[in-house]
Amino acid sequence: MKAVRLHAFNQSPQIDDVPEPKITHPLDVIVKIGGAGVCPTDLHITLGQWDSRMNTPLPYTLGHENAGWVSEVGSAVTNVAVGDTVILHPTPTCGLCHACRAGDDMHCINSTFPGLSTDGGMAEYLLTSARACIKLDPSTQPKDVAALADAGITAYHAVRKALPLLYPGTTCVVIGAGGLGHIGIQSLAALSATRIIVVDRNPDALKLAEQLGASHTVVADGNQVEAVKELTDGNGANVVLDFVAEEGAENEGWDMTAPGGSYFVIGYGGTLHIPTLDIVSTERNVIGNIVGTYNELAELMQLAQAGKVTLHTRTYPLDAAVEALNDLDAGRVRGRAILVP
Amino acid sequence: MKAVRLHAFNQSPQIDDVPEPKITHPLDVIVKIGGAGVCPTDLHITLGQWDSRMNTPLPYTLGHENAGWVSEVGSAVTNVAVGDTVILHPTPTCGLCHACRAGDDMHCINSTFPGLSTDGGMAEYLLTSARACIKLDPSTQPKDVAALADAGITAYHAVRKALPLLYPGTTCVVIGAGGLGHIGIQSLAALSATRIIVVDRNPDALKLAEQLGASHTVVADGNQVEAVKELTDGNGANVVLDFVAEEGAENEGWDMTAPGGSYFVIGYGGTLHIPTLDIVSTERNVIGNIVGTYNELAELMQLAQAGKVTLHTRTYPLDAAVEALNDLDAGRVRGRAILVP
Amino acid sequence: MKAVRLHAFNQSPQIDDVPEPKITHPLDVIVKIGGAGVCPTDLHITLGQWDSRMNTPLPYTLGHENAGWVSEVGSAVTNVAVGDTVILHPTPTCGLCHACRAGDDMHCINSTFPGLSTDGGMAEYLLTSARACIKLDPSTQPKDVAALADAGITAYHAVRKALPLLYPGTTCVVIGAGGLGHIGIQSLAALSATRIIVVDRNPDALKLAEQLGASHTVVADGNQVEAVKELTDGNGANVVLDFVAEEGAENEGWDMTAPGGSYFVIGYGGTLHIPTLDIVSTERNVIGNIVGTYNELAELMQLAQAGKVTLHTRTYPLDAAVEALNDLDAGRVRGRAILVP
Amino acid sequence: MKAVRLHAFNQSPQIDDVPEPKITHPLDVIVKIGGAGVCPTDLHITLGQWDSRMNTPLPYTLGHENAGWVSEVGSAVTNVAVGDTVILHPTPTCGLCHACRAGDDMHCINSTFPGLSTDGGMAEYLLTSARACIKLDPSTQPKDVAALADAGITAYHAVRKALPLLYPGTTCVVIGAGGLGHIGIQSLAALSATRIIVVDRNPDALKLAEQLGASHTVVADGNQVEAVKELTDGNGANVVLDFVAEEGAENEGWDMTAPGGSYFVIGYGGTLHIPTLDIVSTERNVIGNIVGTYNELAELMQLAQAGKVTLHTRTYPLDAAVEALNDLDAGRVRGRAILVP
Repeated sequence: MKAVRLHAFNQSPQIDDVPEPKITHPLDVIVKIGGAGVCPTDLHITLGQWDSRMNTPLPYTLGHENAGWVSEVGSAVTNVAVGDTVILHPTPTCGLCHACRAGDDMHCINSTFPGLSTDGGMAEYLLTSARACIKLDPSTQPKDVAALADAGITAYHAVRKALPLLYPGTTCVVIGAGGLGHIGIQSLAALSATRIIVVDRNPDALKLAEQLGASHTVVADGNQVEAVKELTDGNGANVVLDFVAEEGAENEGWDMTAPGGSYFVIGYGGTLHIPTLDIVSTERNVIGNIVGTYNELAELMQLAQAGKVTLHTRTYPLDAAVEALNDLDAGRVRGRAILVP
Repeated sequence: MKAVRLHAFNQSPQIDDVPEPKITHPLDVIVKIGGAGVCPTDLHITLGQWDSRMNTPLPYTLGHENAGWVSEVGSAVTNVAVGDTVILHPTPTCGLCHACRAGDDMHCINSTFPGLSTDGGMAEYLLTSARACIKLDPSTQPKDVAALADAGITAYHAVRKALPLLYPGTTCVVIGAGGLGHIGIQSLAALSATRIIVVDRNPDALKLAEQLGASHTVVADGNQVEAVKELTDGNGANVVLDFVAEEGAENEGWDMTAPGGSYFVIGYGGTLHIPTLDIVSTERNVIGNIVGTYNELAELMQLAQAGKVTLHTRTYPLDAAVEALNDLDAGRVRGRAILVP
Repeated sequence: MKAVRLHAFNQSPQIDDVPEPKITHPLDVIVKIGGAGVCPTDLHITLGQWDSRMNTPLPYTLGHENAGWVSEVGSAVTNVAVGDTVILHPTPTCGLCHACRAGDDMHCINSTFPGLSTDGGMAEYLLTSARACIKLDPSTQPKDVAALADAGITAYHAVRKALPLLYPGTTCVVIGAGGLGHIGIQSLAALSATRIIVVDRNPDALKLAEQLGASHTVVADGNQVEAVKELTDGNGANVVLDFVAEEGAENEGWDMTAPGGSYFVIGYGGTLHIPTLDIVSTERNVIGNIVGTYNELAELMQLAQAGKVTLHTRTYPLDAAVEALNDLDAGRVRGRAILVP
Repeated sequence: MKAVRLHAFNQSPQIDDVPEPKITHPLDVIVKIGGAGVCPTDLHITLGQWDSRMNTPLPYTLGHENAGWVSEVGSAVTNVAVGDTVILHPTPTCGLCHACRAGDDMHCINSTFPGLSTDGGMAEYLLTSARACIKLDPSTQPKDVAALADAGITAYHAVRKALPLLYPGTTCVVIGAGGLGHIGIQSLAALSATRIIVVDRNPDALKLAEQLGASHTVVADGNQVEAVKELTDGNGANVVLDFVAEEGAENEGWDMTAPGGSYFVIGYGGTLHIPTLDIVSTERNVIGNIVGTYNELAELMQLAQAGKVTLHTRTYPLDAAVEALNDLDAGRVRGRAILVP
C-alpha cells in the first residue's frame, strides 16, 4: 500500500510502497483510512522537535488524525465490526494501568502514538486498537471529521476543563483562531454563555471567529494585552486558552489573565517566565493541556453530528502530502488540510 | 498605646506611642491584641518589596497575624461580643462583591490588609471588622494561635485545594518545613493518607517533619530532584507544595512534579522558567496560592482545638519587636516568633 | 401605601393601606416596587401550607419575587445607590454565618424571606437588605424580570447543579414546562448541549418548550415513563429535573432516571416512596433544590440581558392581585402574572 | 475441584465436586482462591431476593469477595502473571463501554458479577478477568484481605464520595458498625478530621467503633434521632452513611440529616417515604451507593497495607461454608467470616 513516510529529519517525507499492516493482538483493529489530517505537529516532527520525547522511529509513516472504515478486527474486539465508520483516538491505550482505569487515557503509561511513535494514518491502512475506535453514524464522511481526532480533541479537552470556571458573566480569551482555536471557539459557544474574546494576528481568522461565536475580536498587533484589559474593566479574563504559546504569546497570555484566573497552555514552542510573587499575589494558575480522553472525543462527535462544531477543510490526494505540508507551512491552508487516500 | 511602626524602608521599625483606634463603621470591631505573629513577610515589607503591590502607607503599624479579645464593637456587629476570644482573618472584606458572595474572601475587591496596607496588630489594639473575627473557645490563648491567622491559613488553603488530588497511593512533596511548611505537613497528615516527602536544607527541620507526619525526608543538598524521583519510581510527585519558591527551589519543584501532576506555589521570591512544550507534553499545572477563606481559618481552628495542628512558638514582649525580627532574619527562630503586648 | 395583605388562611388577601417601611439597620434598603411576581407558592401560603415551616405572621404583605428601584439606603450600604434599578434575591441574609461565608445564601441561619416570613413586595415599597440587591442596567424594566427573583433563581440553581452531569451525549428530562420549567429549559439550552426531553400535560406548554430548546416533548398522558424509556434506549435520563413533584410525578420522575443518574426535586406536594434496594442496585440519587445563591441570580440576569432567557408575563395592577391569584389558580396564566403598583 | 453451590432458593448450598474453570478469552485469568468472604448478601441470595435483578443461574457457585494467587492467564494479560497475589474487583468489566472508559466500573453495561450472576469464588479456583485483578505485595495473605473485595470497596466508595462534604467542623453519622460499617469508620478516620457519630443496636459494636475512630456512639434504642440531634445543636449531621437502610433505619437516617446535608444509602431492605416538600425546603439529598471502582479498591489496599484499615475476620474451611452462613445469620460472627479452601 502507499504511505507517506519520513526517512530523515529536515527532509520532506516521501510516498513509499509498504506492506499492509497485520492483526497480531486480540484487540487489534485495521482501519481503511478515509481521511488523515495534516497538522502543524507534523512540521515540528519533520524538524526533529519531538524526537527526544517520542524517540521518532525513522523511517516511519506520518499521520495522527485519522478516520475511516474498519477492515479487520482481532479476536477480542466487541465494540466495532468490519465495515463500521470510525474516528480514532490518537493514542491506543492499554486499558489496565491506573490512568486508563481512571478514564485519563492521555496519561496511559503503555500507550503508543501512531504518527509520532509508530506508523500513522497517512496511508491506505492503519493498525490501531479497539480501544481507539469510536463508531460513527454510517453517513459520516471520514474526511469531514478526521481532524477532530487530534486538533479537535485537544481543543475540546481544554474547553471541557475550563467550563466550570466559565459561568455567565465571565470572560474567556482565545489566543489563536486557527486549526485548534476555531474548534475551541465553537465548543465554548455550544457549552457556555461566557463572553468570548478572540486574539489573532490574521484579520480573516478574526472574521471567521465572529461567525463562530466570538463576542469581541482583537488583532494581535502588539497592544493585545491592553486591548483585553480594556474589554474587561482592567481585570483581564477569567480564563485564557492559548492555542499559540510561542513567540511571546505565552507571556502575553499570562498577562491577560485576571486575578484568581487560569491560563491554559495548549499551543507550544515558547517559554514562560513568571516571578513566583506574581503567581501568589494574584493566585493565578497555569494549566497544562494535552489530547483529551476517549469519552471526550465521543462527546465532540456528538457536537459535530448536531452541527454545533464544524471543520473548515481542504482535501488533497495522499500523493500530494508534501504539497499539503508545504501549504500548511506557508500559511496557505484555511482550516485544516486532509489527505484522502 | 504602644505600636511597632515602620517609618522608612530599609530601616528597623520603632516603638511609638499612638492614639487607640476608634469605631467608625457599623461592622467595626476593636480587638485587644493577645498575640501578633512575626512573619518573613514583615522582613520583605521593611525592604520595600510589597510597596508596589500594596502601596505601603509609611509610617504605619506592622502585624498581620493577630489574635486577642474583642474590646469594642460597632452597631451592626452580631457575630462577636465584647470579651470574646478571637482570631482574625488577615483581610477584612466588604461582604458585597462577587468574590465575597462566592466565599472567596481572598479575592474581595474592597478588602484591606492590616499590617500591609493599613495599621496592623503589633500594638495594644487593632481596628478590624466583624467579617474578620472568628470566635474561639474562651480557654484558647491568643498567643498560641496567632500565627495560624496568616501562616496557618495560607498553608491550610494550599493543602485544602490539593486534597482531591491526594488519594491513597499518591505522593506529596513539601518543600520547606519552616513556619508555613510545618503547618502544611500536619494538615496533610490530618486530612489525607498520601505519602509525604519533605525537602529542606535544615536537618533539624527534617527531624521535626518526621515527628509531624512525613513518610520520607530529603536534605536539599543539590540532589533533591533526583532523590524525589528515586522515591517515586522516576515519576515525581502527584503534588508538590513549595513553601520556598525562591533561590532555585521553584524550578526544582516543577521538575519534581509527575506527569499529570500539579506544582503549588506558596512561597515567593524566585522566577519560574518553563518551556510551554514541557507543560503540554506532560499536562502539568502550576497552581497559585494566597491566604485562604474565612471558613478555612475556622476549619483550621477546629484542627488546632483537636490538637491535630500545633504551633512551635517563641514569645517576645512588644518592646522586643526589633529583636524578634532580627532573630527571624538570622534564622534563630524555631517555629514562629510571637509578640505579646 | 397600598399593600396586598393576607389576614387569614383560606381567605383571599385584601388591599390595605399601610405605613411605608423605614430604615433601621445600616444595611437596610427600601425599594420602590416595579414588579412583583405572583407564584403558585402564594396559593400554597394562603392555604396555610407553609405556616408550620415559616410561622406565617398574619396579617402580612405577600410577594417574594420583586424588582424595582432603590428609594432609600442605610448608612453602610455601598453596593447600590438611590435610583438604581435592582432585582432582589428572595432571602436577605446575615453575611456572617458559615453558610453565608461559603456563598450558600439559601442556607443562611439568620435570613428572612419577605413575602413568607415578613412583609413582601406586593406593595408600593419593600424593606430589604443591601445583601439582597443586584444592580441592573438602568434600561431594564423591573416588571420584565421580577419573576426571575424566585421562579428564575430556583430553576437556574437546579440547572447549574446538574450541568456537570450534562455533557454532550446525555439526556435531561424536564417535568413541567410552566413558570419554573420554561426558565429551566432555556437555561439548559444556553449552558449545555444535552438532549432535552420535556414532559407536560399541556400540549400548548409543550409547543412553547420546543421553541425554547426542547429536543423532544412527551404528553403526560399516563405513559410518560415508557415514552422517556423509549427515547433513551430503555435506560432513562441521566438527569430528571422535576418542577412538579406532586400527584405522582415524583415517583414517575424517579422511574425515568437512568442507572447512575440523578433525580432533582424542585416542585413539591407529593411523597416519594423508594425501596433502598432500588437506590443501591442502580446507584441513583435524589437531589434537593431550593432557591439559588445571590451570585446565581446575578448570573441569570446576565443570561436575561443577553436575551438567552426570556419570561412570558402578563401584568396586573396591584389592585387586581386577587384576580391574578384566581387566574393562576384556574390555570389561566400563560407564563407568569406580575403585579405592577 | 470443590465448590459451594446453591441448587435452589431457601435451601442451604452444598459442597459439590465440579470441573476446574478454563481460559477461553485472551483477558481471562484463573485464580487459586486463598480466601472467600461470607457476606449478608449471600443470605439474601439464598432467599431469592436478588433473582429478579441478577437472574441467579441455579445451580451455581457462591462467593463474591475473593483473593488468592494467579494460576493461569490468557494470551493478552499483561498486568498480572502466574504466581502473583491478587485481590479481585467484584465485577469483571468490558473495558470498552462509556462507563468503563470513564472509570465507573460499577456501571459497566457488560460486566458479570461472579457469585451473583456467574460462578463465584467459594471454590478452589475462580475464573475472572485481568481487569478484575489487583496485584498485591507477595507477603499479603489473601484470607486477611478477601472481605475488602466487596464489603470493603462498598464502604470505601461511599466514604470517598462523601469526603468533599466532610471538612473539619462537620459531623458524619455512621449507622451500623458491622462488616461494612467498621471499614467505613476506619476509612473516615484515615481520610478526614470530621466528627464521627456511630449508631448501632449492639453495645459491643459501639465499643469497637470507639477504638476505630468514633468520636461519639449512640445506642439505637428508639431515641437515636433525638440523640444525634442533641449532639449536633439540633441540626443533624452533614452526612449520614447508612449501612443498614432497613427496618426503619432508612427513615431515621433521613431525619438525622442536617439541612443542606446528604443521606447516603449503602445498606438495603427498607423503603424510604419522603414528602417532596421536606426535600426542597431543606435542600437535602439521598445518595445511592454500590460497589466502588477498580482504582478505589487499589486505594483501599494502600490503606490496608499501611495498617489504617484492618479487618476482624474468622476463618472456616471451605467444607464448613454452611456453618459459616448459619453463624452469620445468627449474629455469631464478629467482623467477617472467611472461607479458606
